Amino acid sequence: MSRHTWTEIRRALARPVIAVAASIGLLLAPAAVAQQEAASSEKTVVGVALYPGFELLDVFGPVEMWAYVPDFEVVMVAETAGPVASAQQGIEAVAQYSFADAPEIDILMVPGGNGTLVELNNEAYLDFIRKVDATSTLTTSVCTGSALLAKAGLLSGRKATSNKAFFSLAVQQDPSVDWQGSARWVEDGKYITSSGVSAGTDMALGLIARLKGKDQAEMLAKSLEYEWNSDPENDPFAIEFATAN
Amino acid sequence: MSRHTWTEIRRALARPVIAVAASIGLLLAPAAVAQQEAASSEKTVVGVALYPGFELLDVFGPVEMWAYVPDFEVVMVAETAGPVASAQQGIEAVAQYSFADAPEIDILMVPGGNGTLVELNNEAYLDFIRKVDATSTLTTSVCTGSALLAKAGLLSGRKATSNKAFFSLAVQQDPSVDWQGSARWVEDGKYITSSGVSAGTDMALGLIARLKGKDQAEMLAKSLEYEWNSDPENDPFAIEFATAN
Repeated sequence: MSRHTWTEIRRALARPVIAVAASIGLLLAPAAVAQQEAASSEKTVVGVALYPGFELLDVFGPVEMWAYVPDFEVVMVAETAGPVASAQQGIEAVAQYSFADAPEIDILMVPGGNGTLVELNNEAYLDFIRKVDATSTLTTSVCTGSALLAKAGLLSGRKATSNKAFFSLAVQQDPSVDWQGSARWVEDGKYITSSGVSAGTDMALGLIARLKGKDQAEMLAKSLEYEWNSDPENDPFAIEFATAN
Repeated sequence: MSRHTWTEIRRALARPVIAVAASIGLLLAPAAVAQQEAASSEKTVVGVALYPGFELLDVFGPVEMWAYVPDFEVVMVAETAGPVASAQQGIEAVAQYSFADAPEIDILMVPGGNGTLVELNNEAYLDFIRKVDATSTLTTSVCTGSALLAKAGLLSGRKATSNKAFFSLAVQQDPSVDWQGSARWVEDGKYITSSGVSAGTDMALGLIARLKGKDQAEMLAKSLEYEWNSDPENDPFAIEFATAN
């Protein structure tokens, strides 16, 4: 057994639990722990706007990545705090905050999932993402989440993408959006929209690269043994489609 | 806009919610709906044994995939039912069942995460996975979850793998295991162990390929826009290490 690895383990076991958690993202860990202590009031709040029927990987791929960024604090919000059913039958995640008591959100993320179809007609949801977007530094989506951003009027005239299997659902919400049928993810100003489900994880690392540098995103991906598709234009699932007229 | 895609959307909107959920896994959908109606009593129960400090993507990458298999029912179990804290600060998932009231589990999954360090000394957790393993058809792990399987004595003399950053933690639990430093995942009889975090999602599709055929796994990956590393021996994060003596 390599001495180096043993040393890592001993060090991990000797640290408090939160430091061990951070150390799984090995190369980010020292910075993470230092900043957690020094600057908890200066965190960038990343808010995931959950709804019943959200797609699990749309949420937890990106959250896995963002939670390791030292000065990010990821929070889950929903119309009502507490357990929120995912699109995957029986599986629930917990919203820590309701829309009414959510902290100020710097980076908004709107996931996709079959529940999108309901939320497109839920003014409480659309109002919340409009309100957060008014002051967010970045507004992001995964999968059919971009249909919700479009319905809320936030993507008008911008480039964006969506889940390929439900692409028309997004187009239908706002044909003035310059919808991209070939893109792993699309950045247009502060708006970052990703393609279907798994593409969200690549987008999440792209966001880290944008804010923290590509080397940081690559180190994190490696520590989580994630094969990052780092090129937003490299879309293995591209579709051909004619834009709405 | 293509007429074909519009037709898909209209059809989706006309269906009940559960069918819409299934239709995101487009090519599996007709089979999924038919089997849900015909054979709900013949489900293969996939049980994820959660613990405080589980790694989010270890759980939700595989669950995303398995939840789309028509005759799988994925359940989350923990020592105590209700919200379970993940390794990612503040983020919780819900265990539907306690160990005491869990249904009979056919396929067991033990995730990794910093909480592994605590569970290695929790006899209630180790006893539960031993008990389930005694009658499971498959016993699987992601990341440091294999350290828990090893500690429970379930991998003795078998080939297995683990998270590369915490490889020694696994080796330390049972040096009689033939630990593989280069493997995306390892199958030895009914035991399937995967490498760190993201590797679990590739393993989960490998399990689907084993039980349902590789074409089914490939179709599912495509519908979720997931770039599947389908070769268990193709490990971009392989490590060199000397086995314990």
